[in-house]
Amino acid sequence: MKLWQKEGVTTAEQIERFTVGRDREMDLYLAPFDVLGNLAHAQMLETIGLLTDHELSLLNDELKAIYQDIEEGSFVIEEGVEDVHSQVELLLTRALGNVGKKIHSGRSRNDQVLVDLKLFTRDRLWRVAEATQRVFARLIDRSEQHKNDLLPGYTHLQIAMPSSFGLWFGAYAEALADDMLTLQTAYRLANRNPLGSGAGYGSSFPLNRTLTTELLGFEGMHVNVVYAQMSRGKTEQTALTALAAIAATISRMAMDICLYNSQNFGFLTLPDALTTGSSIMPHKKNPDVAELLRAKTNRLKALPMEVTLVMSNLPSGYHRDMQLLKEILMPAFDELLDCLDITEFMLEHIQVKTNLLDDSKYDLLFSVERVNELVLQGVPFREAYQTVGKEIAEHTYNPPRTLHHTHEGSIGNLGTELIVDHMAKAVAGFGADRAQNAIETLLGRSR
Amino acid sequence: MKLWQKEGVTTAEQIERFTVGRDREMDLYLAPFDVLGNLAHAQMLETIGLLTDHELSLLNDELKAIYQDIEEGSFVIEEGVEDVHSQVELLLTRALGNVGKKIHSGRSRNDQVLVDLKLFTRDRLWRVAEATQRVFARLIDRSEQHKNDLLPGYTHLQIAMPSSFGLWFGAYAEALADDMLTLQTAYRLANRNPLGSGAGYGSSFPLNRTLTTELLGFEGMHVNVVYAQMSRGKTEQTALTALAAIAATISRMAMDICLYNSQNFGFLTLPDALTTGSSIMPHKKNPDVAELLRAKTNRLKALPMEVTLVMSNLPSGYHRDMQLLKEILMPAFDELLDCLDITEFMLEHIQVKTNLLDDSKYDLLFSVERVNELVLQGVPFREAYQTVGKEIAEHTYNPPRTLHHTHEGSIGNLGTELIVDHMAKAVAGFGADRAQNAIETLLGRSR
Amino acid sequence: MKLWQKEGVTTAEQIERFTVGRDREMDLYLAPFDVLGNLAHAQMLETIGLLTDHELSLLNDELKAIYQDIEEGSFVIEEGVEDVHSQVELLLTRALGNVGKKIHSGRSRNDQVLVDLKLFTRDRLWRVAEATQRVFARLIDRSEQHKNDLLPGYTHLQIAMPSSFGLWFGAYAEALADDMLTLQTAYRLANRNPLGSGAGYGSSFPLNRTLTTELLGFEGMHVNVVYAQMSRGKTEQTALTALAAIAATISRMAMDICLYNSQNFGFLTLPDALTTGSSIMPHKKNPDVAELLRAKTNRLKALPMEVTLVMSNLPSGYHRDMQLLKEILMPAFDELLDCLDITEFMLEHIQVKTNLLDDSKYDLLFSVERVNELVLQGVPFREAYQTVGKEIAEHTYNPPRTLHHTHEGSIGNLGTELIVDHMAKAVAGFGADRAQNAIETLLGRSR
Amino acid sequence: MKLWQKEGVTTAEQIERFTVGRDREMDLYLAPFDVLGNLAHAQMLETIGLLTDHELSLLNDELKAIYQDIEEGSFVIEEGVEDVHSQVELLLTRALGNVGKKIHSGRSRNDQVLVDLKLFTRDRLWRVAEATQRVFARLIDRSEQHKNDLLPGYTHLQIAMPSSFGLWFGAYAEALADDMLTLQTAYRLANRNPLGSGAGYGSSFPLNRTLTTELLGFEGMHVNVVYAQMSRGKTEQTALTALAAIAATISRMAMDICLYNSQNFGFLTLPDALTTGSSIMPHKKNPDVAELLRAKTNRLKALPMEVTLVMSNLPSGYHRDMQLLKEILMPAFDELLDCLDITEFMLEHIQVKTNLLDDSKYDLLFSVERVNELVLQGVPFREAYQTVGKEIAEHTYNPPRTLHHTHEGSIGNLGTELIVDHMAKAVAGFGADRAQNAIETLLGRSR
Repeated sequence: MKLWQKEGVTTAEQIERFTVGRDREMDLYLAPFDVLGNLAHAQMLETIGLLTDHELSLLNDELKAIYQDIEEGSFVIEEGVEDVHSQVELLLTRALGNVGKKIHSGRSRNDQVLVDLKLFTRDRLWRVAEATQRVFARLIDRSEQHKNDLLPGYTHLQIAMPSSFGLWFGAYAEALADDMLTLQTAYRLANRNPLGSGAGYGSSFPLNRTLTTELLGFEGMHVNVVYAQMSRGKTEQTALTALAAIAATISRMAMDICLYNSQNFGFLTLPDALTTGSSIMPHKKNPDVAELLRAKTNRLKALPMEVTLVMSNLPSGYHRDMQLLKEILMPAFDELLDCLDITEFMLEHIQVKTNLLDDSKYDLLFSVERVNELVLQGVPFREAYQTVGKEIAEHTYNPPRTLHHTHEGSIGNLGTELIVDHMAKAVAGFGADRAQNAIETLLGRSR
Repeated sequence: MKLWQKEGVTTAEQIERFTVGRDREMDLYLAPFDVLGNLAHAQMLETIGLLTDHELSLLNDELKAIYQDIEEGSFVIEEGVEDVHSQVELLLTRALGNVGKKIHSGRSRNDQVLVDLKLFTRDRLWRVAEATQRVFARLIDRSEQHKNDLLPGYTHLQIAMPSSFGLWFGAYAEALADDMLTLQTAYRLANRNPLGSGAGYGSSFPLNRTLTTELLGFEGMHVNVVYAQMSRGKTEQTALTALAAIAATISRMAMDICLYNSQNFGFLTLPDALTTGSSIMPHKKNPDVAELLRAKTNRLKALPMEVTLVMSNLPSGYHRDMQLLKEILMPAFDELLDCLDITEFMLEHIQVKTNLLDDSKYDLLFSVERVNELVLQGVPFREAYQTVGKEIAEHTYNPPRTLHHTHEGSIGNLGTELIVDHMAKAVAGFGADRAQNAIETLLGRSR
Repeated sequence: MKLWQKEGVTTAEQIERFTVGRDREMDLYLAPFDVLGNLAHAQMLETIGLLTDHELSLLNDELKAIYQDIEEGSFVIEEGVEDVHSQVELLLTRALGNVGKKIHSGRSRNDQVLVDLKLFTRDRLWRVAEATQRVFARLIDRSEQHKNDLLPGYTHLQIAMPSSFGLWFGAYAEALADDMLTLQTAYRLANRNPLGSGAGYGSSFPLNRTLTTELLGFEGMHVNVVYAQMSRGKTEQTALTALAAIAATISRMAMDICLYNSQNFGFLTLPDALTTGSSIMPHKKNPDVAELLRAKTNRLKALPMEVTLVMSNLPSGYHRDMQLLKEILMPAFDELLDCLDITEFMLEHIQVKTNLLDDSKYDLLFSVERVNELVLQGVPFREAYQTVGKEIAEHTYNPPRTLHHTHEGSIGNLGTELIVDHMAKAVAGFGADRAQNAIETLLGRSR
Repeated sequence: MKLWQKEGVTTAEQIERFTVGRDREMDLYLAPFDVLGNLAHAQMLETIGLLTDHELSLLNDELKAIYQDIEEGSFVIEEGVEDVHSQVELLLTRALGNVGKKIHSGRSRNDQVLVDLKLFTRDRLWRVAEATQRVFARLIDRSEQHKNDLLPGYTHLQIAMPSSFGLWFGAYAEALADDMLTLQTAYRLANRNPLGSGAGYGSSFPLNRTLTTELLGFEGMHVNVVYAQMSRGKTEQTALTALAAIAATISRMAMDICLYNSQNFGFLTLPDALTTGSSIMPHKKNPDVAELLRAKTNRLKALPMEVTLVMSNLPSGYHRDMQLLKEILMPAFDELLDCLDITEFMLEHIQVKTNLLDDSKYDLLFSVERVNELVLQGVPFREAYQTVGKEIAEHTYNPPRTLHHTHEGSIGNLGTELIVDHMAKAVAGFGADRAQNAIETLLGRSR
């Protein structure tokens, strides 16, 4: 039974299916966070006299029991129950009667959904941060391991100057450190409390929103109640933009891998577990996993635009359109987390070809080294450049294969510790501890 | 067992899940079309001597039986079978032994998937065309029914000139007629035969591609085998663009409905079945269905960009990335068809307010009529315009409420038959009969 | 002076700049089409008695003179004149006094802009069609010229089966033939007459819209006046989608060229005119032109989304937002036409490497040929596939280098005439002759 | 003359135009930043012995003179000079001969462009931050000024609960405070030093990158040289995403304004300077400026996708495609800054209607207040809800017009100081002082 269903009005089944869509499936993601929101709201209601101490105690016990059911996988949204919020309320009412109903005071379905979404998004962004750190660690390892394995460096897809696998792996590590800043911002925008904003116009109850902000471990509050509602869409957009940033980094790496795995480059070998054969060509070992990684991460880059399209030109105030944002946001986390796991596995098992630059077709890679040799001998740069051009044209060019790159971030000085430090600072900026401690406290657990 | 799986190589379960993803689910959409492709390919193989007449007859019977299972809902992709194509082949081999295996001659998995996708897309685009025509018919009905019910016409969201529900409903009908042209192009691009292109580089067998083109009722062939492969992505893009065009029309109508349903406009009433209440505001009747219609159709507008992102900057030749296009394309048809059904229902039940323009706040709508009155009396336009402006400022303006619009497409002359004719011509351009006749013939059915 | 400017109200210069933006620059694109719209409107006004025969004759002469000024490049929008429509009206009034003013009867700025935009878009889409045909012709030439020059065919960027430059060039030709269908639809949507729809609510004058439809050579009319206004956005969207389709084809070809030009592939050589050097690497010949071609065409693919974002969730009726569509649409034609010109030049001068497949690293390309050899000797496909896999693993594989591909669209039978025919039919479907004849007649010129 | 142009090779003019495009125009934006990069690079070269103390002094003087020319508007890129970097080098060489040429040591065109872009982007993001703060201040002012002016609050575009102009203005202020966090991240990603990364593979000179990082006031370094190059695209993407976030906030406010300005709402009045008339309807005062604001900001939301499309699936290493990013990025700042200026002006002059809720059509807004009254009298919520629903149906409902909202962020307690504090912290996180101080020091100016 729906809360708003009035007597004598039946809703055709098709309309039901149309309006609910995948929403009940999405709502399961929210279940633990709905309980957390209820715990904080109940505790606050007690402090302003809308629940007695005894009622709070009953509610606390019941809510914790529901939380445990969720953790154990036994929680379901029953047939005929509209959403996760109704299901939790139903369980409370079934167990506690009128006390269960009282928890809806001073709250609207709108701010209840909002706080659940904030807690969910904050949680998932942190999981993404953790998975990204694992990929980062793997990249750093491989970078150090292969710092002496040279690789042709390309510009314009033309062979250009010597590079190394140390540089190549390290570059993607540093990219993820920058992406972590974007992720941090998404986390901080998700980490603000909308509870108490009602349907977007607040409440005449004397709510203590500062208290629920602390209880749920939020960094701060969405103060203005109209804005709290308006943050819907912005939160999703910012989260998906951060996911898209990481996806873009992974996607580009996957493109490199597919290319370097081609026989025409031959820089990498993928383990059999990550390749597939062909139904008609018996010689094939195709990099399907890397290709799907590329495709899936490329697709994730479209999601911020989906949110934009749903939200564009909607006036302020809640619209049911926003329900659809759940379907865009929620599966995206699973998708990216999968991609990050596979990336980690791939980075662990990828094999690197050594001594690539011994092949004479890469001789021209050293032309800048030759120019610089002349410059260090006192020849002006422009003249040296012309001289080497002439040597190449006249086949007198002799590549100087010994490299002396010493500056920060170069082949000979990868600057790994600077990159690791950059990542560590970005992670620290999340302030994730506060959130985790608060939740443990709410649940009466110690860490 | 996968076709390409070589002995001694096991694939970790996670990688399996990553590579298969939702693909088996998607493949169920393709099942009937895979059987049709098999029927045509077998018939062609017999003409070039790669199947005997008897073998063809055995295959035909078995394939038709599978088709019937699919229609009856009893077809499944068994556990451990990679995809729909392997499942069909497995069933054939189980029933017919080596004869079942022979059907793979002169074909690659690539062109088999391609032809299935073409047949699927062609089928669904036609279903969309049919659903769109139903919505169109409803709009035309309501337009004629309300041709005398006036409505304020707005520009810049400012009241501008008199309009009518006849015009308003008719406008969306004509929009759909134009969208039908875009749909027709998508249909025609999907209606070309890629079978025989192998993995994108053809076959050394003397295939008769003209024959399979006719058997499957295609308008023509993707001639060049490299292009046949390259049409992957383009087909999906074009189909989704056509869906997005219809979605944009529906979305805009839904926005109008939400606005006109607001108390501040009050032009429409939605039936109870299409509204919902609020958990905290007892007076609310919210247009949730129209809002979700708007949101879902807005979201559909993002899908062409998803295809673009997956395909951008991929060199020619097949890449596994393209598998992901199925997940973008296939559910989109279901989503739009749902939206069109709901739209039809909504258009049937929506109630229109009458005599809206009697309200004095709409007096200014008639200012252009007043200007034109003066012009017809011989006053130059610019002077008449100034005079009426002055009348309004000095409160001497008297709105001339009788309208005499007679030209094509105006309030007094909706031009409905022209719009209906425009739609009919667009539909005729699909050439959908050929496809349907060919399939009935392949299946040995008469229409 | 602006038409709508009332006495005593001054507009701050900044606001002026903000509202006009690049609009006057954009309006210059519309100048010739504004004159054509005026010619047709005037002729129609005479038939319904709002202009005398003599007045029409004066207007005709003056408008043709303005048209000639535009063709000769001497037409300007004078300082302080708001837009091209005001400028044309100003010139008429300056020359003919009150007669010049009369032409505004039965017309709004809205439908005047609309008809100009339709005529402009129709014109530019045809120019794109012509340039596309030139690129197509070049591709067909090169395809025939190189039908015997083999090229490695790739799937998953892994060497797969033999291809040829004949197939490669031909594939892009056929892609353009399919794109031409999309372009045709855009042309047909642009080829409908909105004139007479006023500000979106028609006119009380007894306009003859059928007459202006014929005079301007439109295929038909946007009948419903509300829809005529609503076609704004849809026209631009459809045109830009067609441009994006062609852009996607060119972009992919440019990616192939950049890759094939890399030393690691070495399939193509670009002429010096199309390459650049490096400021620090004396050996570089970079394919900058192909890269910019790729980038510019990739960027064009975003433009339909820009239109979508401006239009999403706008209720029906005109909004000033639509002015911005001009800035998105108009320069896109110039950009794509430039890209097509460069593509034509590049295709003319690109040099193809021959005998590529003699290199032993491409031996595996022939593995399917070897499988098929065995199949034709009576070995079942699956067994032959296993045998060849074993030969490769045990280094006993001997590539059968002679190809016998005979089916439609294969290496040995490119099917060029089918592709040429496909393109010709797509072009014929535009019905471009009617438009051109009508305009010549309006201008009193013979063809 | 281009640096890379070799003797005897001429480039056709069309290709020149195609490759240069709008690039020289874009380069003018970079001029001051190119000088700053040169100043830092020169100072560093001296410390590693590649310039003498005297040479550095000469270069410093000349560069500062060029900087002054740029500030005074007298700097131009001369005809035939390829780009801004060549122009600066030309001026130095003209003045100082060989000394001018020496400054190119240890640097590639690539890292020179990169550092210029970083400095430019950092500068413009700060300007956006400043303009955003001005809009924020105006919103806060209006919020406080109108905290007692009530406004109908809507959900689903249905009248819902009482709101206020205090809440409405304040909501957009808080939105901008959240957007400022996104802007901060973009600033921090732009605020990292790529100088010394050469063409993406470093240099064999013993460069001191830490020194140039400090001299240019960067927060840190793009350490890994391959990543420094790879940050191209990511920097632009992140900056444009931040601009899009602000644009989305402004766009939504503009939508509200257009709606509230409609006669059917009538909540706001726009000053004459911000409205326009109609060429055919003498009564119109259209909100064109708000509409263009909406359109321009909506369009800005597409720009991150343009960058994505140009960059997608490009392998690592520089590609000329990236040049095009300048055309996407650079004008976007001007566009958004214009929009913010107009927004500030609009917010200053917009007039608010008072006593809106006295109109009886808004009585239902108070239904939740009535429910809460009953709850506070001891009636359980669900029962109170039903009672009020019944009162409304039976016309016995009497709206309790006195509001007692006291919690944080509610009508009666806007929480302005919390919002102001949130903004202040976001701004402080930029660390913009370091950048400004460093630049003053480089130029030898005191602040």
